[in-house]
Amino acid sequence: MKLLITGGAGFVGSRLAMRLLAEGELYGQKIDKLVISDQFDPPTSLSSNPKVECRTSPLLSQCEVLHEDRFDGVFHLASAVSGECEDDFDLGLRSNLDTTRALLDALRRAGNSPRLVFSSSVAVYGPDPAHPMPDTVSDQTLPMPQTSYGTQKLMCEHLIADYTRKGFIDGRSARLMTVTVRPGKPNGAASSFFSGIIREPLNAEVAICPVKDNVAHPVSSPSLTVQGLKTVYEASREDFLGRSAINLPALNVTVKQMLDALENVAGKSVRELVKFEFNERIAAIVSNWPKGASAQRAARLGLHSPKNFESIIEEFIADQKGVG
Amino acid sequence: MKLLITGGAGFVGSRLAMRLLAEGELYGQKIDKLVISDQFDPPTSLSSNPKVECRTSPLLSQCEVLHEDRFDGVFHLASAVSGECEDDFDLGLRSNLDTTRALLDALRRAGNSPRLVFSSSVAVYGPDPAHPMPDTVSDQTLPMPQTSYGTQKLMCEHLIADYTRKGFIDGRSARLMTVTVRPGKPNGAASSFFSGIIREPLNAEVAICPVKDNVAHPVSSPSLTVQGLKTVYEASREDFLGRSAINLPALNVTVKQMLDALENVAGKSVRELVKFEFNERIAAIVSNWPKGASAQRAARLGLHSPKNFESIIEEFIADQKGVG
Repeated sequence: MKLLITGGAGFVGSRLAMRLLAEGELYGQKIDKLVISDQFDPPTSLSSNPKVECRTSPLLSQCEVLHEDRFDGVFHLASAVSGECEDDFDLGLRSNLDTTRALLDALRRAGNSPRLVFSSSVAVYGPDPAHPMPDTVSDQTLPMPQTSYGTQKLMCEHLIADYTRKGFIDGRSARLMTVTVRPGKPNGAASSFFSGIIREPLNAEVAICPVKDNVAHPVSSPSLTVQGLKTVYEASREDFLGRSAINLPALNVTVKQMLDALENVAGKSVRELVKFEFNERIAAIVSNWPKGASAQRAARLGLHSPKNFESIIEEFIADQKGVG
Repeated sequence: MKLLITGGAGFVGSRLAMRLLAEGELYGQKIDKLVISDQFDPPTSLSSNPKVECRTSPLLSQCEVLHEDRFDGVFHLASAVSGECEDDFDLGLRSNLDTTRALLDALRRAGNSPRLVFSSSVAVYGPDPAHPMPDTVSDQTLPMPQTSYGTQKLMCEHLIADYTRKGFIDGRSARLMTVTVRPGKPNGAASSFFSGIIREPLNAEVAICPVKDNVAHPVSSPSLTVQGLKTVYEASREDFLGRSAINLPALNVTVKQMLDALENVAGKSVRELVKFEFNERIAAIVSNWPKGASAQRAARLGLHSPKNFESIIEEFIADQKGVG
């Protein structure tokens, strides 16, 4: 089979690609070719694999001829992130809405109704005066995005559901939780500290936590997120239950629980590298995010939450060793 | 003030235009100019009004220069209808999604954050295996469209909410119920019979009802729909409650109640012109539609349902006399 991963050089995309190549098959079919589409080059461990073809340019520009590939399956992870979309409204619409539509039209034009998994986001949820957000959002919660990123993800979910209803593709949308611990440098995202307060101390650096330690948030690990995307791909339509989006499982943790876990794994001195410097702007953004999420439909597919935050930290440490 | 009504030559649009011109003001501001944009020419009663400027061409082609107008307010009613969108997928996306986005970008470019009322639809609701639809859909019901038309309306609701959040426009979305009794000929819409079973008998013609008489549906009258759009325009943001869409009030009636009302207004012989010929295809489509709708937020704004179906029939009869 011939697969496409958009955003395949990214944090989640490259891990998904590595796993699929290691397993050699998906949904019982041998993977003959894996196309990685991304703005950036994937790691050499991916690009050197003989089954991998890298296409390094904006996805929108690739869509014109994409129908010629007749992919059997697609993981659509390419996306401008939350902060970028708030700073540049047109960029967000182009990167997220227009690009997704161009991709869907290319797959429709191919004519073979390929299976597609779309990485949506817990960012589709938000509070609205007419729709107060529950502390724990579920598959049944009315999405009311409070960012352009969340709005575009939600619009794409519905577009994908309609292309699926028409038989142009066999699409499924999975809402990802905040994936931690991200490697690398802090980025401009308001959620950056959810990784920073673990990553920096483990590297013997001071980290600033801009919110109070009772802030709660639904997170997941890279490996369980990759597992979630794969399972959603392999689910039958009946098991998936219709065409609406599902939440992937989350571990609902407070900042304090994250730091307790850090201390359990790495000791008190490491935890003490985290300093609290309250940042009003970031705290205000975070207060619009869900405090937790449930995932009943994902559980029906056999998916589960990370068992605790310690396991997420241990995965990060093992991952770093693998890279190093 | 300078107003734009897109789809202003249509069934609801032309009635809204007539009413606004008759009242001469909106939201306490004198109406100096009313631009009617439509694919078709509006009735002479509108086009002959010195305050009216008609622009007769596809709205999408008008959007390029629309920022120059700097409208104070917009009623965006232009839309391809449900049946058209099912028959021609690209037409639906172009007429509903692309055109709305081009309109929003023109208003954003104008830079004066105009107020905009968008006519969304009860078609955003539908049953999904994971989200069974309640018999009566409310403002709180999770929309799960089962048509391209409903999908595009829902996507536009969220797009408008985000343009509003960014301050580019001051937008509000109101979900219209099925507006009856439509004048003219039957059209290809599956809902056509909801008007036909009243209109044809009143014109001494036989009408075919393709569904059983226990089928229930949320309907409203042209005048209360126009009132709803005007009230939503005039509502403060606080009274409207946030940026999510609201249902306009509905009268939830069965076909039997509609025909009882017809008999009450026009007599038994008129009712007997309605023949039942069950049509599996139409019945299947209708079974995916809400059986009723509630409108708690509209009620907060002082809007109410038609008091009974007799009043809707009487409005139609009076309206026909006015035209004739």
